[in-house]
Amino acid sequence: MVDETDSYAKKAIQSDLPLHKLVKLIDGLDENSVSKIRARILEMRMNVDLSSVKELGSKMNFAKIVGKNIENPVGGVSLPVGVAGPILIHGSVADGSVYLPLATTEGALVASTNRGASATTASGGITTSIIKDEMTRAPVFKVSSVGKALALRRWVAENLSLIKEAAAATTKHGQLQSADCYIVGTNVFVRLSFTTGEAMGMNMVTIASERVAQLIEENTDAKLVALSGNMCSDKKAAYINSILGRGKSVSAEALIDSKVLKEVLKVSSSDVVEVNIRKNMLGSSFAGSLSQNAHYANIIAASFIAMGQDAAQVVESSQGYTFVEDRNGKLYFSVTLPSLEVGVVGGGTSLAPQRELMGLTGVYRCQEGKRAKWLAEVIAAGVLCGELSLLCALASNQLASSHKKLGRAQ
Amino acid sequence: MVDETDSYAKKAIQSDLPLHKLVKLIDGLDENSVSKIRARILEMRMNVDLSSVKELGSKMNFAKIVGKNIENPVGGVSLPVGVAGPILIHGSVADGSVYLPLATTEGALVASTNRGASATTASGGITTSIIKDEMTRAPVFKVSSVGKALALRRWVAENLSLIKEAAAATTKHGQLQSADCYIVGTNVFVRLSFTTGEAMGMNMVTIASERVAQLIEENTDAKLVALSGNMCSDKKAAYINSILGRGKSVSAEALIDSKVLKEVLKVSSSDVVEVNIRKNMLGSSFAGSLSQNAHYANIIAASFIAMGQDAAQVVESSQGYTFVEDRNGKLYFSVTLPSLEVGVVGGGTSLAPQRELMGLTGVYRCQEGKRAKWLAEVIAAGVLCGELSLLCALASNQLASSHKKLGRAQ
Amino acid sequence: MVDETDSYAKKAIQSDLPLHKLVKLIDGLDENSVSKIRARILEMRMNVDLSSVKELGSKMNFAKIVGKNIENPVGGVSLPVGVAGPILIHGSVADGSVYLPLATTEGALVASTNRGASATTASGGITTSIIKDEMTRAPVFKVSSVGKALALRRWVAENLSLIKEAAAATTKHGQLQSADCYIVGTNVFVRLSFTTGEAMGMNMVTIASERVAQLIEENTDAKLVALSGNMCSDKKAAYINSILGRGKSVSAEALIDSKVLKEVLKVSSSDVVEVNIRKNMLGSSFAGSLSQNAHYANIIAASFIAMGQDAAQVVESSQGYTFVEDRNGKLYFSVTLPSLEVGVVGGGTSLAPQRELMGLTGVYRCQEGKRAKWLAEVIAAGVLCGELSLLCALASNQLASSHKKLGRAQ
Amino acid sequence: MVDETDSYAKKAIQSDLPLHKLVKLIDGLDENSVSKIRARILEMRMNVDLSSVKELGSKMNFAKIVGKNIENPVGGVSLPVGVAGPILIHGSVADGSVYLPLATTEGALVASTNRGASATTASGGITTSIIKDEMTRAPVFKVSSVGKALALRRWVAENLSLIKEAAAATTKHGQLQSADCYIVGTNVFVRLSFTTGEAMGMNMVTIASERVAQLIEENTDAKLVALSGNMCSDKKAAYINSILGRGKSVSAEALIDSKVLKEVLKVSSSDVVEVNIRKNMLGSSFAGSLSQNAHYANIIAASFIAMGQDAAQVVESSQGYTFVEDRNGKLYFSVTLPSLEVGVVGGGTSLAPQRELMGLTGVYRCQEGKRAKWLAEVIAAGVLCGELSLLCALASNQLASSHKKLGRAQ
Repeated sequence: MVDETDSYAKKAIQSDLPLHKLVKLIDGLDENSVSKIRARILEMRMNVDLSSVKELGSKMNFAKIVGKNIENPVGGVSLPVGVAGPILIHGSVADGSVYLPLATTEGALVASTNRGASATTASGGITTSIIKDEMTRAPVFKVSSVGKALALRRWVAENLSLIKEAAAATTKHGQLQSADCYIVGTNVFVRLSFTTGEAMGMNMVTIASERVAQLIEENTDAKLVALSGNMCSDKKAAYINSILGRGKSVSAEALIDSKVLKEVLKVSSSDVVEVNIRKNMLGSSFAGSLSQNAHYANIIAASFIAMGQDAAQVVESSQGYTFVEDRNGKLYFSVTLPSLEVGVVGGGTSLAPQRELMGLTGVYRCQEGKRAKWLAEVIAAGVLCGELSLLCALASNQLASSHKKLGRAQ
Repeated sequence: MVDETDSYAKKAIQSDLPLHKLVKLIDGLDENSVSKIRARILEMRMNVDLSSVKELGSKMNFAKIVGKNIENPVGGVSLPVGVAGPILIHGSVADGSVYLPLATTEGALVASTNRGASATTASGGITTSIIKDEMTRAPVFKVSSVGKALALRRWVAENLSLIKEAAAATTKHGQLQSADCYIVGTNVFVRLSFTTGEAMGMNMVTIASERVAQLIEENTDAKLVALSGNMCSDKKAAYINSILGRGKSVSAEALIDSKVLKEVLKVSSSDVVEVNIRKNMLGSSFAGSLSQNAHYANIIAASFIAMGQDAAQVVESSQGYTFVEDRNGKLYFSVTLPSLEVGVVGGGTSLAPQRELMGLTGVYRCQEGKRAKWLAEVIAAGVLCGELSLLCALASNQLASSHKKLGRAQ
Repeated sequence: MVDETDSYAKKAIQSDLPLHKLVKLIDGLDENSVSKIRARILEMRMNVDLSSVKELGSKMNFAKIVGKNIENPVGGVSLPVGVAGPILIHGSVADGSVYLPLATTEGALVASTNRGASATTASGGITTSIIKDEMTRAPVFKVSSVGKALALRRWVAENLSLIKEAAAATTKHGQLQSADCYIVGTNVFVRLSFTTGEAMGMNMVTIASERVAQLIEENTDAKLVALSGNMCSDKKAAYINSILGRGKSVSAEALIDSKVLKEVLKVSSSDVVEVNIRKNMLGSSFAGSLSQNAHYANIIAASFIAMGQDAAQVVESSQGYTFVEDRNGKLYFSVTLPSLEVGVVGGGTSLAPQRELMGLTGVYRCQEGKRAKWLAEVIAAGVLCGELSLLCALASNQLASSHKKLGRAQ
Repeated sequence: MVDETDSYAKKAIQSDLPLHKLVKLIDGLDENSVSKIRARILEMRMNVDLSSVKELGSKMNFAKIVGKNIENPVGGVSLPVGVAGPILIHGSVADGSVYLPLATTEGALVASTNRGASATTASGGITTSIIKDEMTRAPVFKVSSVGKALALRRWVAENLSLIKEAAAATTKHGQLQSADCYIVGTNVFVRLSFTTGEAMGMNMVTIASERVAQLIEENTDAKLVALSGNMCSDKKAAYINSILGRGKSVSAEALIDSKVLKEVLKVSSSDVVEVNIRKNMLGSSFAGSLSQNAHYANIIAASFIAMGQDAAQVVESSQGYTFVEDRNGKLYFSVTLPSLEVGVVGGGTSLAPQRELMGLTGVYRCQEGKRAKWLAEVIAAGVLCGELSLLCALASNQLASSHKKLGRAQ
């Protein structure tokens, strides 16, 4: 087979066949063979060795995922996965002792999050809550005047049930909740909010929004400019995501014992309060940062990659506020994430290792229909663990020394 | 071995040994064996199957990476990798025909980016530039009054060479360029900017900053509150990153032929200009988003994961501005990324598949010392390809239909 | 009387009587006499001459306004008032030919706004629209946990009619429309939105909110921390004001004739489009500015001062978006102000010159009940005139030369 | 004269003479007569009475101020002025016991600020500091490519002395300090920073910037798009003003005695700390507000109007951070205003009442050359007084009741 791969690769190079048309090289080529040929072509062209990449690819079933998860595959990449836990959770959905898998290459991140897990568990656990749950898409329409914009808004308000029906025709999992119009000059952003069942839901919401946009174009003078008008706001940091929420708005909170603070975390409650005020609350604002935390992104990114979530959504999923209080020497510690976008079906969640790792959070012992919320609560709890640990490390001045030992940047 | 793993796992469960202390189970256990036992314990506790995760872990050398890249490992996770390219680049450093590897599970992303690569290459290629190159860390100090804050600022200004020496003593790769003091009440944020050679540099900068902080504490009345005061600003979206830059400030630009627009991208130049104005420029501002683009995060996240970069830095690395012009029917298309944080050494870049994939960008044909810049320019060019393709898809109203076919959200 | 003023002043100085207790100097002193004594004291203490200030004060009836509009008066200050107009308006409320009074000391501002008035009137006038009309106040409560925060939110949702009654008991002009809870950790911001009749309404809303806050404290575990929790957001620039609106959300738009552009404004349509894109849309975002305009604040400030509005509310009232289009050589020009806070009763509107100047906008020919909206539309039209004129001046490079002639900065 | 005014007014109406051309009615008309005719025309057209406005105008010398401060005058408007003080200041420039004049129509504002003055004076006074002092203007240029943008940046760096000379040729009061280039695609924002002596300086800076822009156009391929590119950022709320400063960056701080807190302000130190954290620090961020304070704008607006400053600059001058600490029952209270734009010459400072009122701050006992800084420090001290008083009122729950008594909204 190696020989054949080589000869096909050479043939493709000679005929200058684009990489996404390799399947045309010969009848009956399967996607895994194509991916090897593609990798071989690149090895030749760029004078590199892709053997690890190809080997990882050989474990994948590209026939199943090409088009759905990937195109032009050349193989795979792997990341090491560590776990933080047990994390004891008392949530509105999630419950009990769970683990958070973290795929990362940043030393100290897992250890630090795990330290937070120990500290919270030793203090009685973490309480989690779902504050809101809606996924949004906001197409932008153009009209000829503000008068026409107001007419569009009226039409939307008066025909909401019609719009809901149109959306419902495209999906049985998502349900349109509201359609709010935002007007600037001749621009109308129609922000559509959906429940999305067990999925993160961006796909179903986009498809439903396309149908709604068609309906609007058919019934008004408005013309669709872009199916996403950036008031959604997907994969961008934006205040609208904090103020109105997107995906899961979720919080986690814990009351850390004085003894745990002193012995495990090597700080006093008031030290942590001070770091939170001067760094997270003041420093963030002064830097023009749109929320107030130290490193939610670290835990969000690592858990998203481990569990098949959309890594680009780390951007807004890591928006959030750390709020702490000194309670007579105990430390009340909370994290609030207004736009955590996760699901247990769709995207990368169907890949085997990702699905296995999701199991560590206990999500499959949850009844169907509530699993996406469960997952959101576990991730929020993990964020609390990581944030608590880092703030305590900063307060006790351990950050750089843990870097020196473990090689991680926050 | 399976049997032994099982028995060790049971033993650990019985003795309630924490996961991060499994190495103590028995003398001479190597890290890979420990990771299997850890995974087995979790399988038992959570009633899950981690076979794919463990298999991926078995290809890793945990002895080498535990502490440096990961802790508490249970195995690995893999993502499929597709390539976009060839991308033709005329850069200040990067040059020639290259490929961008993208690790993602979001259908259509690679295909879309690849379409942008074809369109730009057919139009003569992409020009890339490095605008600035500095990594920052901003410890926050507390003082007793603004007078003391001003005194600290004076001390820093007058002792800059001393401070540079202190920083230099911790690293031979990074060089302190400047130390700027930002004052609010009794808080002084000392923003330290470094060149970092071939590394993204967050680690070396943190360690150097710790030494600088000690020097400041020894010589002034200031007390360090936190080694990072959030004016860095790492892993948070912040205006300071756009205004002052962080990591690589980089741009990519191309002039798309009218024929390519019409035949490949199915749009006119003015359609794209309109989408950029109404969606990226207006919609972003109205949403309270801190820059102006459609989906830089998609390309940044997928290329970061493929090439061993820090996925949590997708947050600020995806800040940026798409600026386009109609030039007599041709489309001038540019992306500017003020805070793209990448390196070719450190972090996950030493893992085999990541290193192999980095080779696809041609970075190893670049002389040492300029490779991090090369990588930044290639990623910026890839961002241009992805952004161009999506804006054109929106302009020609293909977004939802490509989702339906390929299942990807933007 | 001068002699007496002097002797009272000396007496007060000798007895070290605070300025706000001068009324105690002798029985039967009226407020105007007190203000003269106060001014005299200050003349002596600070070795200054306040004769113009005192003279302006002598025309005021301090007995009527002390406590209501001012305390510790020493006299008055005056500003010159110029007018821009006629401005031809076709509004949802405002209608016909009106004038905008501008109290300013910045040369060129009135002339420039007037030029915009001429240009729009020559092009058929300005269309204005009210997009939304609600005044807000958001007290912040503290609770012991997120669970309690959710309970508070539930209580508010379930008792909205009770809350409305409580608010209604404090005012017959304002009506509570909605009460939205925003939760971060143990903080709940209850954002109360009211219609406020002919008043700007901040006072009535604050008093109503106090009653609502008491009701909440009586019926839940929540404790009021501050009657304003900064999510209102009053007298601060904030995205929430743009996204959700505050006071009047209002727009103005006009289609400028090609001939007017060329002969009056000395520009082409495309020049203005370019300035708007590069300066207002891109420059604003890059600067971390939260909306997109050139100088709404100039017209807002000058008209607010002329007509007795709250000058501190210039901050958020000047948030807004300039959106323009080239329409075959004509220029579509729009301004959208999401949070313009104005009223025709209350505040400084009862002072004679302010009330007289308000008459120039034609507001008194409007039926009662719609006058605040009328005023908002006229101011928005004036903002359009000023913004149009400045963008055209910049496009034709006249800014500095008009400064040199007229001495005004934008 | 009344008769003549009437007949001229009628004549102008009949001949449809524009308001700004009334001087052409008859030879030898002085500006004050013209203003009366203009007012009379408006009285007739709009069926209103402008007698108070005209009377205020009759005290003004329009010959002197038309073109410099106003155009199209119809008279004047006056506001009552109250004073807060004495305020005891220990500043880097300002010193001793001073008063702050406040022109406002918002009841309770002066009384509240005065309460803060009493509390701080009773606690030993307020310390003020100048952190930075530079006025900026940032023209935006367009170029054909990023390469050209970088060339422009190089040219500016290499020709800074030439640029300084060009700027110097336009003013003897302002000195160019730096010229920083910010690049996005084909846009270059050249941010020019100047010292401006005793003036706020926007005018001199604009004129100097025009000359610099010409120089740049003559020597490079760049084309000026707009003399202000919104990265200045004048009269707009923007993070760049906080991060880099604009005008005076100034702070004020005080340590409030426990006894004063208890007896005068009716609060404990920890109550105020809590209000600051939950309202100013958290609420502001959650609302998308770009700094952290309660109502700086109130004091800034009222003092700006009283003392002839540019009221439109209240927008960015009121950006700032309130930072407080509990110090063993005493309250450390600080305000930091990064972009307070004030001057003692130019603008409205030459009008008699404004100039008289400025004297209350003691500015004329300061040596020439340092007066603008003195004024900035006094205003900052006044902001502290107002902010302290309001936060204490909120903490002790007096806000709405003081409104009911005095009728003021915060």
